[in-house]
Amino acid sequence: MNIYQVAELAGVSIATVSRVMNGSDKVSEKTRSRVLQVIDEVGFTPNVFAQGLGLNTMHTIGILVPNISDIYMSSAVAYLQDSLAKYGYDLLLGNSGFEQEKKEQQTALLLSKHVDALIYVGSTYAGSGKDERETDYIRRAAEQVPVFVINGGVDGDNIYSSVCEDEAAVYNAAKVLIKKGCSKIWFLTDSRSYSAIKKRTGYERAIEEAGLNPVQLHVDNRIHKVRDYLLQHDDLNFDAVIAGSDAIAIGVMKYAVQKGLCVPEDIAVIGYNNSELALACEPELTSIDNHTEQICRDTVERMIKVFEAGGAENNIKRKLTVPCELVERGSS
Amino acid sequence: MNIYQVAELAGVSIATVSRVMNGSDKVSEKTRSRVLQVIDEVGFTPNVFAQGLGLNTMHTIGILVPNISDIYMSSAVAYLQDSLAKYGYDLLLGNSGFEQEKKEQQTALLLSKHVDALIYVGSTYAGSGKDERETDYIRRAAEQVPVFVINGGVDGDNIYSSVCEDEAAVYNAAKVLIKKGCSKIWFLTDSRSYSAIKKRTGYERAIEEAGLNPVQLHVDNRIHKVRDYLLQHDDLNFDAVIAGSDAIAIGVMKYAVQKGLCVPEDIAVIGYNNSELALACEPELTSIDNHTEQICRDTVERMIKVFEAGGAENNIKRKLTVPCELVERGSS
Repeated sequence: MNIYQVAELAGVSIATVSRVMNGSDKVSEKTRSRVLQVIDEVGFTPNVFAQGLGLNTMHTIGILVPNISDIYMSSAVAYLQDSLAKYGYDLLLGNSGFEQEKKEQQTALLLSKHVDALIYVGSTYAGSGKDERETDYIRRAAEQVPVFVINGGVDGDNIYSSVCEDEAAVYNAAKVLIKKGCSKIWFLTDSRSYSAIKKRTGYERAIEEAGLNPVQLHVDNRIHKVRDYLLQHDDLNFDAVIAGSDAIAIGVMKYAVQKGLCVPEDIAVIGYNNSELALACEPELTSIDNHTEQICRDTVERMIKVFEAGGAENNIKRKLTVPCELVERGSS
Repeated sequence: MNIYQVAELAGVSIATVSRVMNGSDKVSEKTRSRVLQVIDEVGFTPNVFAQGLGLNTMHTIGILVPNISDIYMSSAVAYLQDSLAKYGYDLLLGNSGFEQEKKEQQTALLLSKHVDALIYVGSTYAGSGKDERETDYIRRAAEQVPVFVINGGVDGDNIYSSVCEDEAAVYNAAKVLIKKGCSKIWFLTDSRSYSAIKKRTGYERAIEEAGLNPVQLHVDNRIHKVRDYLLQHDDLNFDAVIAGSDAIAIGVMKYAVQKGLCVPEDIAVIGYNNSELALACEPELTSIDNHTEQICRDTVERMIKVFEAGGAENNIKRKLTVPCELVERGSS
C-alpha cells in the first residue's frame, strides 16, 4: 500500500493525502476523515508512509554507476550507503553503462523517482573533457536537485565534484619505479575517461622528465583478456607496468607467469584502486588507493550541508580534491 | 520535470495528467488543454514521461541485495540489468544489509517507488529456515507485486524462487577431493543462511559416507581476516578445504603461503561462486559455479511471463533449481 493507492481509494489527490498526514488546515473535515479512514482500513505503517509524504523530500538519494559489477564501483556504492544511512537517507541505484544516451535516460528515471539529490560515481560521467555538451545532462539535472560527481570534475551551478589526484598519483608511482631502476615502464588502461586522461598525463610527465620513452596500450579490463592480449605480442619489452585498474595489473602478472618471468624482479607491476583483487594475487599487488571510502563519506557530508543551506546559493566548496596513496606490496 | 510537477503547475491530480497522456475521454477539454499547455511549456521528454504515466506500470523492477560490494551480488545485479533492459525495464536497487528490520524497511521503500516486481538476490532473504515468520515480509510484499527470490526458497502465493543445487554441488566437490586422496577435508563458511545450510548438509553427507570426520569453521569473508584467523591456530591439520566463498578460499591459500605449504599438493582448496577473485590468485582457484548469469536470465524471463499472465493465478513454475558446476583449476 502506498500514497497513490490511498489517494485512489479515498478519491482524492496525493497532495490532499499529504496535507492530511501533515496536519494542514487546508483540508475539509469531511475529506480528512475519509483519508484517515482509508489509512486506517488498509493498515498503514506510518513510518514508511511518512517518508513518501512531503512531495519534496523522499529522503532518497539517486546513485548512478556505469557498471555495478565493477569492484571499485560496487564498493563505492556500499560506502555511500553506509554514510547515507547515518543521516536517514535511502538510495536508489541506476546502472547506466557508458553510453551517453543511457546515462541521460537513467538520470531522467532517477529524477522521476523524486530523489533529493543525485550522485554520479565514476569519471565516465565527466565525459572526455573534449566537448562540454557531453555533460549538459548533468547541468540539466542540477536545475532540479543538487548533483555530486565522484571522481570526475563537472562545472555548473548546484554541481559538487570530488576528484582524487590521479595525475599526481601516477606521476609518483612512475617515479618510484624509476628510482628502483626500471627504465621500460609501460602504461596500460581500458579507459579514455576524464580520470584515465589524468593518469596518462601523470605517467607521460614522469617518463619524459626521466628521459625515457612512454609506451601506452589500450586493453580490456578482464584478467585473462589482458594476459591473452599480451601473449599474442612478441615485441613486448617492458620491465614495469602501471595499470589503470587492479584487474589489468593482475592480467600482466598472469602474462609473466606464462612467460616464466618473475614479479617484481623481471616485471614490476602497479595496479589502481587497491581493491580486493590486489590481495588475492601472489605476490600481492602494489596499488594506488584513491581513498574511495573517504571520498564517499565527504560527498555525503557535503550533501547534507547543501540540504541544510537550502539552495544552490551557498559557500560550500564545489570541487574537492583528495590525494591518492601508493600502497606498496610485493609486486613492485 | 516530472509528472508531479506537471500536475502541480496545471493544478490537477497526477491521475488527471495520466488520463490526458493516455488519451482518456474522462477529462474535460478545458483541463486537457491546460495540462498539454504545461507539458508544452516545460519542454517535456515524452519518452521518459510516458514511463511514469500508467500508475500501475513504471517499467521499473526493484532489486534487493544484502551487500552490493560483494562480488557475487554485484555481478548478479549486472546480469539482471542486462536481461531487464532487453524487455525495456529499468531497475532500482536497495542495499539492505543482513538484518531483518532493514530488509523489511528496504522492501517497503522499493514498494513505495511503484516497482512492478521485486527481486531478492541472496539466500539471506530466505531466512535460516527455522522460523517461517522471518519471511513474512516477503509474503506481504507478494500481495502487492510478484516477488522473485534468487538463491533462496520462500513459500507463498505470487513468489517465485530460483535456487542452485548447493547441496549436490558441495557433495560432489567433496567426493572429488576424496577421490584424489584427501582425508582431512574441512568446510569453512561465513554464513548461516539457507544456502550455507544446504552447502553444509552436502559436505557432511559426503564426508560421513566416506567414513571421515567433518570439521567446520565459521570465519570472516575477507581474505586477510581468514588467513590471520587460521595462523592463530596451531591445531589445524586439514589437507583440503571447501570454502563457502572464493574470498575465504583465497584466505586459505594465503595461510598456506605463510606456512610454506603448497597448493594443491599439501592443501587442496575449492571456492564458491567462481568470481573474478578465482582468476586473480596463483594457482587459480577451483570453484563451484552457481550459474548466476543463467539464474538471473531465467528469473527475468519468468517475470515477463508472470506479467503476461496478468496475475498470481498462472501455471508458471514457482521453484526452479539450477545445477551447479565444479570449475576445476590449479588449486585442487
